[in-house]
Amino acid sequence: MESSFLRWLEETTPTSPAVALGIGDDGAILRGGPEDWVVAADMLLDGVHFDLQECGGRAAGRKALAVNLSDLAAMCATPTAALVTVALPPNAAQLAREIHGGIVDLAAEFELAICGGDTNCWAQSLAISVTAIGKVTAGRAWKRSGGQPGDVLLATGSFGGSLSGKHLTFTPRVREALVIGGAIEVHAAIDVSDGVAIDCSRLAAASECGVALRLDRIPVSAAALELSPSAAGGEEQSARSALDRALSDGEDFELVIAVAPSELERLPDSDEFPSLTQIGVCIDRPGLWSQTAADEELRPLTAAGFLHGESR
Amino acid sequence: MESSFLRWLEETTPTSPAVALGIGDDGAILRGGPEDWVVAADMLLDGVHFDLQECGGRAAGRKALAVNLSDLAAMCATPTAALVTVALPPNAAQLAREIHGGIVDLAAEFELAICGGDTNCWAQSLAISVTAIGKVTAGRAWKRSGGQPGDVLLATGSFGGSLSGKHLTFTPRVREALVIGGAIEVHAAIDVSDGVAIDCSRLAAASECGVALRLDRIPVSAAALELSPSAAGGEEQSARSALDRALSDGEDFELVIAVAPSELERLPDSDEFPSLTQIGVCIDRPGLWSQTAADEELRPLTAAGFLHGESR
Repeated sequence: MESSFLRWLEETTPTSPAVALGIGDDGAILRGGPEDWVVAADMLLDGVHFDLQECGGRAAGRKALAVNLSDLAAMCATPTAALVTVALPPNAAQLAREIHGGIVDLAAEFELAICGGDTNCWAQSLAISVTAIGKVTAGRAWKRSGGQPGDVLLATGSFGGSLSGKHLTFTPRVREALVIGGAIEVHAAIDVSDGVAIDCSRLAAASECGVALRLDRIPVSAAALELSPSAAGGEEQSARSALDRALSDGEDFELVIAVAPSELERLPDSDEFPSLTQIGVCIDRPGLWSQTAADEELRPLTAAGFLHGESR
Repeated sequence: MESSFLRWLEETTPTSPAVALGIGDDGAILRGGPEDWVVAADMLLDGVHFDLQECGGRAAGRKALAVNLSDLAAMCATPTAALVTVALPPNAAQLAREIHGGIVDLAAEFELAICGGDTNCWAQSLAISVTAIGKVTAGRAWKRSGGQPGDVLLATGSFGGSLSGKHLTFTPRVREALVIGGAIEVHAAIDVSDGVAIDCSRLAAASECGVALRLDRIPVSAAALELSPSAAGGEEQSARSALDRALSDGEDFELVIAVAPSELERLPDSDEFPSLTQIGVCIDRPGLWSQTAADEELRPLTAAGFLHGESR
């Protein structure tokens, strides 16, 4: 990139006390300490994860950072820094600034530094890759494994219809994760990127147990309801379709956590504590199951989801 | 990506004791400690940094990791882990395996873990982004800043003509950096990605001093000599052209370090110690200068280089 852009980057890029050396050298230096570091990387592509023509560079950049912060939230880590690599289409000087603007604004919201990266041009479409780095007390990061039969599954927010807009504008559940982690013991956690059904089945697989989702309790978003066709046959089919969306649209970037039932009594009754919905339980029987009441027989549930790509 | 590929990834991906949790969760966990972490990220693009048709996926993947390890070497960090994000062209299942193979083989050579990432498909060309993470004793990382007037500039290897092949096959100077860092005091360092002239001018700018390169001492690679046209006018013009290549071809991925002259006496006389060439000195006068003998007047030198992109 031209050096005026690089100078502008240096001037507008946030820093943080944990970053001993930021952009401008061969690498960045993070100050070590008694904590563990959590790192996550995702690449977002024009035409796959966003439509640049429609959303613009600022929203694309913001989303590229946001999905990675959602991964840090899923592990209860405090964001510290991020590295950003960008492949720009031709003649994209203004676009580069917009992308950076979207990233920097979200970084400021969560007080994390942008500590490195790389900007290149090519004759193809926009690709943005972000690596996010966060800190967590040693040994205290949430993992997908650790869920136990009997655990209750709690979810933030609501699900479905994210492509109507939320996938670009969501606030990663970083603050919610830190508040929850400070109040109760969490056995396992995941962020919902591909759909609550498939992501709960991933938590179950990592935890070597099964999951039974309570279909009558999945919070269905207003966007999912709006997108569902009002079938001539009546309300029921329409509602079912919105539930399908909630289960499998993906890109919700909400958190699902598994906790022992005893923890439910310890949930603080405070406006500051995030609102959580019980959406199911971990069970002995492996696989993904559904029921619409606690005493109903379990039915197999297909773990469909938005599989455009999957993080390792 | 299809789940068989992801399973294969999990089975073939190297791990390391510093990585408490690797691929398969929302993020990876690095065990904290008394050390600093050095992080570097670069994205490599088909048609810009490699020609996939010509070199194949294995070489492309290897290079994507190697350029980042070169950045860690430039800061004297021991590689610990890397995250890899990939945008694949259509129908690239075999390509994905080749890229991974090239990455894994180089990772094994330097005993670093691949601790996360993301693989996606799109209708465009291959893009590979790598974030490399290394450890260094707290406060001991080499930086571009810190060079002082009077310091001697030492370089590993030789320069020029890298696009003949070395840019795909070079071994990042990780071992050399660690050996040098253990033996002598280094004031400043940089890896030569864009050309020894422009990268030395970057070291000078970061160190707030100038650099005088000894043109008669720049090690010119055999590839640069081979590429230079044998001018009808005689040997001299041909040699000059090879020197130009050495100064500005870039993609050499050699190290340039600045050390006090007194350190030269401390260079171990051992086969294990890397061979270093004195290519110039840091001077009071800002800017990039050249001379062909120590007592010659300084001439301004243009910092041309391979500017396809620049790391932040």
